[in-house]
This record gives sequence, C-alpha cells and structure tokens, in this order.
Amino acid sequence: MRILLVGAGGVGTAITRIAARRPFFDHMVVADYDPARAEAAVAALGGDADRFTAAQVDASDEAAVTALLAEHRCDVLLNATDPRFVLPLFTAAHAAGTHYLDMAMSLSCPHPEHPYEKTGVKLGDAQFERADEWEKAGRLALVGMGVEPGLSDVFARYAADELFDEIEEVGIRDGADLTVDGYDFAPSFSIWTTIEECLNPPVVYEAGRGWYTTDPFSEPEVFDFPEGIGPVECVNVEHEEVLLVPRWVDAKRVTFKYGLGNEFIEVLKTLHRLGLDRTDPVTVAGESGPARVCPRDVVAACLPDPATLGDRMHGKTCAGTWVKGTKDGREREVYLYHVVDNQWSMGEYGSQAVVWQTAVNPVVALELVASGAWSGSGVLGPEALPPGPFLDLLTEYGSPWGMREQ
Amino acid sequence: MRILLVGAGGVGTAITRIAARRPFFDHMVVADYDPARAEAAVAALGGDADRFTAAQVDASDEAAVTALLAEHRCDVLLNATDPRFVLPLFTAAHAAGTHYLDMAMSLSCPHPEHPYEKTGVKLGDAQFERADEWEKAGRLALVGMGVEPGLSDVFARYAADELFDEIEEVGIRDGADLTVDGYDFAPSFSIWTTIEECLNPPVVYEAGRGWYTTDPFSEPEVFDFPEGIGPVECVNVEHEEVLLVPRWVDAKRVTFKYGLGNEFIEVLKTLHRLGLDRTDPVTVAGESGPARVCPRDVVAACLPDPATLGDRMHGKTCAGTWVKGTKDGREREVYLYHVVDNQWSMGEYGSQAVVWQTAVNPVVALELVASGAWSGSGVLGPEALPPGPFLDLLTEYGSPWGMREQ
Repeated sequence: MRILLVGAGGVGTAITRIAARRPFFDHMVVADYDPARAEAAVAALGGDADRFTAAQVDASDEAAVTALLAEHRCDVLLNATDPRFVLPLFTAAHAAGTHYLDMAMSLSCPHPEHPYEKTGVKLGDAQFERADEWEKAGRLALVGMGVEPGLSDVFARYAADELFDEIEEVGIRDGADLTVDGYDFAPSFSIWTTIEECLNPPVVYEAGRGWYTTDPFSEPEVFDFPEGIGPVECVNVEHEEVLLVPRWVDAKRVTFKYGLGNEFIEVLKTLHRLGLDRTDPVTVAGESGPARVCPRDVVAACLPDPATLGDRMHGKTCAGTWVKGTKDGREREVYLYHVVDNQWSMGEYGSQAVVWQTAVNPVVALELVASGAWSGSGVLGPEALPPGPFLDLLTEYGSPWGMREQ
Repeated sequence: MRILLVGAGGVGTAITRIAARRPFFDHMVVADYDPARAEAAVAALGGDADRFTAAQVDASDEAAVTALLAEHRCDVLLNATDPRFVLPLFTAAHAAGTHYLDMAMSLSCPHPEHPYEKTGVKLGDAQFERADEWEKAGRLALVGMGVEPGLSDVFARYAADELFDEIEEVGIRDGADLTVDGYDFAPSFSIWTTIEECLNPPVVYEAGRGWYTTDPFSEPEVFDFPEGIGPVECVNVEHEEVLLVPRWVDAKRVTFKYGLGNEFIEVLKTLHRLGLDRTDPVTVAGESGPARVCPRDVVAACLPDPATLGDRMHGKTCAGTWVKGTKDGREREVYLYHVVDNQWSMGEYGSQAVVWQTAVNPVVALELVASGAWSGSGVLGPEALPPGPFLDLLTEYGSPWGMREQ
C-alpha cells in the first residue's frame, strides 16, 4: 500500500510516528502547504524515515493533489488537514482513482430561516451525495475515521452487534482533565475547529423525527468519565457521529456531547458575542497599513499551538460511546471508551494526548484496508465495517479500549 | 478666546455641537488625523458653523500641532483624542504658549515587580513632573476635565468646601442602564480605552499609605444609582480621580469604582485570558498575505463604533462622587451625581449619552476660563479650582446635577 498523507500539522505528524512502527504499507508521502512542516515530520522519524517522502501541495488545488497521487502511484489519500479542505481532497482522490480517508466530514451550513430548529446542509452531505460515484468506481471513501468521529462510531457498531438487542440512545461523550502549565487558557485542540463545531447549531437524531438542531450548548449534563478523570459538564455540539451512526446502526436517538466545562463554554460564548469567531475579514490598521484579517484567525494567533504543548500538559483525555438499551429483555447501559494519558503518549511518541488519540485510528483503519480485513466501496462511515478487527488491532497498537457497565 | 480642538471622534463632535450654542469663544479649529471627520463635524453644525474651521493634523506630531496653534492664533488646546496622544499634545501646547485641557491623563506603566501591589509610573505622572514649566510660563494645563475625571473631581471639591468638615472616603461611582437594540454586546464607550482602564492594576489612595494598586476588578460592591438606574455591580478600576483628588482635597481614602456589571467584567477577563487585549502585534494570514495586527485593534474592529449607536441606545448614564465623613460632629454620606438620559441627548444634540456627558464638561470649563471665573497656572486638576461657578454653569447648560443624602 502506498499512502498520500495530506497535512503535517499536529495530527499528521503523529500519524507518521505511529505508522513508522507498522510494516503494513510500502510508502507514505507526507505533503503540506508548508514544505518545512512536511520535511520536519519526516526528519523527526530518524532511522525510520526510509518509507517516507516529504512533498509540498496546496490542499485546495484538486489538480495538484490528483497529480501528486499519480506521481507517487498512491492507493489511498489520508486527509489530515482542517475541514475546509475535505471537498477538494475527496474530489482529487476520486479523480485519481484512489481510496480516501478523513477524520472530519464536509462542513455544514445552517438552515437559513430556522438555524436552531432545522438542519440546513448537514455535515458530510456534500460527500454522501456523491456515494454513487465512489460505488461505481469500486473505491472506498472512509469518512470520519479519527477518534471522534471514528473510534466512537466503531464503538456504536460494536454495541449494536454484541451488547444490545435494542438501542434507545447512542450518546458520544468526550471529556478530559488536561491542564497546561504556564497558560491561563490553552485549548488542547485546534481552536479554529473547536469554535466551528461548538458554535454551529448542535444536531440531534431521533428515529421518526430525523435530524434536527438545537441552540448551542444545549442539554447540559454532568458525565462521569473513567480512569480518574471524573465528572465534567457536557453539552450538545455539532459532530459527525450524529450524522453517521443512524445510517448503519438502529438507535432511537443519537447525540454528541462535548465535555467543554463551564469555563470553556463561557469563553466560546464571549467570542461569539463579540464577533471574534467570524471568518469573514475585518479591516484594521496593520503595521504596514490597513490589513484585512479574519477575527477567528487572530484568536488562533493569540493562543499557543496546541500541538506544541505536550511537554507542559498533564492529564488524560477520554473519547467514548455511551449506549442505553435492552439485552435479553433487560435494561442495559454501557460506556465504551478509550483513554490516553498525555504522559504516556509524550513518552512513547512525543505527541500530546488529544492529537495522538486522533491520529492512531486512521492508521489502524489503513492497516485493516491493507490486510483486506476492512473492504468496501462507496462513502462509508466507520460503523459500516466490522468493529471486532478494529478494536483488536487498536489494542495491539498498545492503546487498549475499555468498557464500563453503568 | 480661540480654541484648537484636536480629535473629531464621538466626544470631539459633541463638543462642537455644545460649544456652537455658546457665545463665549471667537473661533474653534476642529482638527483630526482624518480630515473627513473634522469636516463632517463642522458641516453638521449647519448655520452655526461660522465660528468653526476644519483642519488636518497628526496628534503625535508635536511640531505640526504647535504650528497649527500659531497659525490660528489659538489661546488654548482642547485634547479630545485617546490617551495615547496626551503627551505630544500637552508638549505642543506648552511650546506654543497656550493653555491646555484634556479629559484623560498621560498613561500609567505598572510596577515591574509588584504590579498588583505597588504603583509604577502613575496616570498623569508625566504631566505633573512638568508642572513647574507651566507655572513659570503662566499658562494653565487643566488635566482630567471631562466627566470622570472632571465633573467627579469638581464634586469632590464641592463636598470638601460645602458639605463636610472631615472626609473619610471619596469614592467615584459610575453606572448606567444603557442597552443597545440589535447588539448582544455593544460597549457605550471606546473599547480600547475601557480595556486599558479596566485591565491595568486599579489604584487606591489612603492617607499615610499613599497610592497603591490591587488586582483587577477588586473590592466588588453593589451601588444603587439614582433616577431609576438602580443597583449595579461596581469594581475598582484605574482612574485619574484617585491620582487627582488627594492633591487638593483632604480625604482619608479615595477610590474609583466602575459599574461594569458582571457580564462586562467576564468579557474583559476573557479577552485578557486569551491575550486579545494585547497591543503588540501578532502575525496572521491577511487577505493580501501575512499581516501584523494588534489583537486589541481587531476586537475594536469587530464591535460597533459606540459614537454611532445613539439611535439604537436606551437608558441613562450616571457619573458621580460618593462622599463619607462628618459635618458638625455628625456622620454624613452623600452622592453628588450627574445623569444623562440618552433620549434627551439624542433629541437635543444628536449625541449619545456617554459621549455627550464627557463633552459638556470641558466646554463649561473653557467658558469659565474665558470669563476669568477660573484662572491659574501650572498643571491643575478640576478640584484645584472653585466648584460653585462650574456647577452653576453646568445647570445653565440645561444639564443639572443632583445630590442624594444616603
């Protein structure tokens, strides 16, 4: 298998470190808009760099990406950029006749009149409407294959297959107790993406009613996370699992709640109230005359790059799927989860916990595709494929998952 | 009297509208960095524009300001720019041999080791250290002559002269119930200045101890404001009165508390936590390549210009001085205040309440200087001069003050 990895940021760099230890692929081309980032990721692999090549590419340039896939005879494109680049990369992979994996789906667009009641363009809609093309081509577009979405969807499918006869609710619940020394406020994941997913209208699925939206930060609940993380305030946010799970798993309700904590929620609300989440440019006096800049980019520029904070970070991050339903006529409630301790991921891989946890899952998925354990064509979510091999291989990677009966 | 007004923003424009109705001066030159702003202020006066001329000047260019004062044979410079330009304008007026008035004093610089315990360079220090030069020249630099500082200092002197034998505390208390239609968050005054005064270490004066600083937003108290505004949460902020009052009024303690309200305090804390109050530039991708911009300028650019919000604004703003002490052997507590209703200031002057309330006071002061009722030389605060004529003339301007015995 020959892989084109696009994006050598925090997650992309962690992917190279995880993949370098696995023999399943022949070559990985690591491409980034900034060639120095791609080269740094490859150089950091040291003696393991043989199977890796650094390259430069503009992820928004479909033709350039298609040409790069052809030039390196790649079988698959792994997208590790931010969600703005999902569509051009998805399209380029189709044009080149390769498989495609991403960790976030094409962006949503709120309902023009009732943004907090009805869905408009949903996450992934632009990808699913082209499922036929992928099926006809006999190629697999495996979408939402990070940790959340990704592993969380695998958990949902595992619960449906192995643990329940009927499912009342699949609720993804994400929480952490990470702190960063020396910073009052230091998000552990891309603030651009966090603002995007937290301020968009949250989406909920209910059988019979379909998908609908709510006000931001709705239905707060305190969820008790395992392995010492403890209780964290969680709220509804827009996330891919809610769009993916109902397509392949029979559940009466699907939700995603993010353990943002009160403090982070207030920060996001304030950014929104002041218009600092905006992605359209404003004019300000710059050092070399008037400049047009996007306020959200300025917010990101004022905060430390989360991928560089691993050394100052402490604590654990937990991704997981809470499922409520019945088995053999009795009520059952479980939480299937995956915890990464920052100290472990820094020691083992030099990658901070949140970034590493996102990165390991697409590598596991690629290994299953390479071995043939996972195969298919069309646009598929992780819950469309058998969960057993995935969960076993994840454990083999040294990062086991857990289950708590509630 | 011939006046050079520098700054044709919200306050400067309101000054022209108030002054246009008063015959005490011969001519006012209205100068701004942006000539269109100066011209718009003069043009808006319509038939009353005869005594006004628009001009362009860079307030940071001392030589240009001195030349403009000479060219128009001005007797006085009235500074209506933001506090960054206090020193060049103060220096230019001295060089030209004119009097000088401002509404905010030269900026402070925190103590390098103990910013939240000790003062460093205090507000106005750079002006007071040149008091001798002004005295020798026989010219008056009347500093802090807006509403707060300004009218609040006049109130303090009035209390000392007429209402108290001994003063325990002079506490300036500022509060409002203003709302702006159509905006979740719309400060009624320059956000640049508000951030500056609220995030700098607040300064407090105590007889025997002198000036010292505290943590931001310290000593919260709920103060009940008059004329229907009601209770508002007030906290210590850095303000000129604390530096001015003790120089001329005998008081055991002097404080300034701003009725920011909890919501505004949280917004300011969040901006600080995220580094968005910074005035040093960060690099972001701009529309025409990388741009270096100051985060605080981007915050200001995202918010509506407060001077333009009068039409959508409702409510009243209150500036005042609470004084506690003894008179004839008995304890006494009063609040001397000045309230402006936005509906009134918009109807009468087309200026929003906060801006109008700031603007009226320097015009009253200039009229007292023109008539000889106020005279002096050196660098003086408003409390250095007799309060009676000022308070009477303010009432004659149609904007009476009030007093509440507590």
